[in-house]
Amino acid sequence: MSELKAGLKHRINMINTALEEYLPEKENPQAVIYRAMRYSLFAGGKRLRPILMLEAAVMCGGEWEDVKPFACAMEMIHTYSLIHDDLPAMDNDALRRGMPTNHIKFGEDIAILAGDALLNKAFEVASSANYANPARAIKALSVLAESSGTEGMIGGQVVDIAAEGRKIALSDLQYIHLLKTGAIIRSACVIGGIMAGADKEQLEAVDMFAKNLGVAFQIRDDILDVVGNEEVLGKPIGSDEVMEKNTYVTISGLERSEQLVKEYSEKAKDALKIFGEKAQFLTELTDYLVNRNN
Amino acid sequence: MSELKAGLKHRINMINTALEEYLPEKENPQAVIYRAMRYSLFAGGKRLRPILMLEAAVMCGGEWEDVKPFACAMEMIHTYSLIHDDLPAMDNDALRRGMPTNHIKFGEDIAILAGDALLNKAFEVASSANYANPARAIKALSVLAESSGTEGMIGGQVVDIAAEGRKIALSDLQYIHLLKTGAIIRSACVIGGIMAGADKEQLEAVDMFAKNLGVAFQIRDDILDVVGNEEVLGKPIGSDEVMEKNTYVTISGLERSEQLVKEYSEKAKDALKIFGEKAQFLTELTDYLVNRNN
Repeated sequence: MSELKAGLKHRINMINTALEEYLPEKENPQAVIYRAMRYSLFAGGKRLRPILMLEAAVMCGGEWEDVKPFACAMEMIHTYSLIHDDLPAMDNDALRRGMPTNHIKFGEDIAILAGDALLNKAFEVASSANYANPARAIKALSVLAESSGTEGMIGGQVVDIAAEGRKIALSDLQYIHLLKTGAIIRSACVIGGIMAGADKEQLEAVDMFAKNLGVAFQIRDDILDVVGNEEVLGKPIGSDEVMEKNTYVTISGLERSEQLVKEYSEKAKDALKIFGEKAQFLTELTDYLVNRNN
Repeated sequence: MSELKAGLKHRINMINTALEEYLPEKENPQAVIYRAMRYSLFAGGKRLRPILMLEAAVMCGGEWEDVKPFACAMEMIHTYSLIHDDLPAMDNDALRRGMPTNHIKFGEDIAILAGDALLNKAFEVASSANYANPARAIKALSVLAESSGTEGMIGGQVVDIAAEGRKIALSDLQYIHLLKTGAIIRSACVIGGIMAGADKEQLEAVDMFAKNLGVAFQIRDDILDVVGNEEVLGKPIGSDEVMEKNTYVTISGLERSEQLVKEYSEKAKDALKIFGEKAQFLTELTDYLVNRNN
């Protein structure tokens, strides 16, 4: 295993241990909601957002304990959005990562509530820790809420729904991604900085990194739908074209998209330079993410 | 108009002004989500929870500005729960307060997102204010999140769904109400106390009041379904029996239920006695709520 992969595995284990702590199984009359939440939360996610938050914090002089509640809150928000996205009234997906989606497994009513409950639990976890610096935690909470709300992730989902089945311009696609996936990746990194007590220059660098990484990551996702290996990817390739989805590849073509991934990932890595050696892990992670096959 | 009704109207106006401030219309690509959120948030709710929070704060020496963000957050959480409750996969209701429900008006996908967005916005509003005492605000945030989560409102909804169509014991019904409607009424009052800087004795009194008021309010609701006037109530009476719903009346009978309303409302008012004259409004409000006809 490469050093990077070993480092990722170590961090994923740490995050999973914390998630288990914050959301254990329960034996009470509403036990099924805990089962439904845990079913999706522990479905093998890559924990990318918590890892980014942790590493942004470390770069700014912080450590895991500083961001633990927020890192787990972020992963809960990511998970709730997937559960609700999969619902029959939304994308109507029966499978995710090769497993039945939440509403197939638990029924639509419980899946709706499990999503609600994960969003709610995110703020419960992030507000219930014993913070040495409550002002900092409140600031991080407001960044978290803003990035997952109507001017962030949810806003992006709404514009994405409106764009379904019609051709849109590249600028519209960029707007959707900036909100739908970009806002959360940025806030993950910025919250890491805030909780580590980063100064203004550091926070701006971290945000610049995250903004560009988010775009590069998304374009690579779109490319993988065209050139990926179905078995490695775990889903049929070419589905974006069949579904008439708007992607970087369908709008700008494959070649230009590959070029854009390079440009954005270079910009992301450039932003990390002020952190010197401390940026090594995030620099390597960026290269790994934009060259990944799944 | 009675003095109480005038007092309520004044407070409702104040709350609506603040909600308008926190959730104005927007003209951006995701404008529809704001319209959907506002449609349900401004559908003529009684603003009971924000009023309780405000009055609890005033009794403990605070004022409107101390609780404004939390009072609005609470109403947003109440509203999101109604939107999701009405969904086809949940209660499948087409009308609420004589108006089309959110999913009938905006479609099921937008209604799901509007509910998510209101829950998210609640925490955005409550975490984005400029608090003089951030530690107090963080504590209030955790009380809010806990009461609306899996050991509060959502937990109650889950147990309620599991109880549908089968006879349950009174103790089960009490558990459902304690969580589903009681937890939020209690946290509204407790947050009012926290943000006003209440001491331990005051917080306990406020909680005792809210706990008993919540039960009395719920039983009165069940009674109204049997003895209410359809036109005043705005919904057909007797529907609980037809739908085989578990209520205080179907389990304990009408006479015993009327007696219980009296007992619980007396306990609620007793708890307020330590506040002397400052408890006048909440005492009168309690009498009004447990004698209401709609």
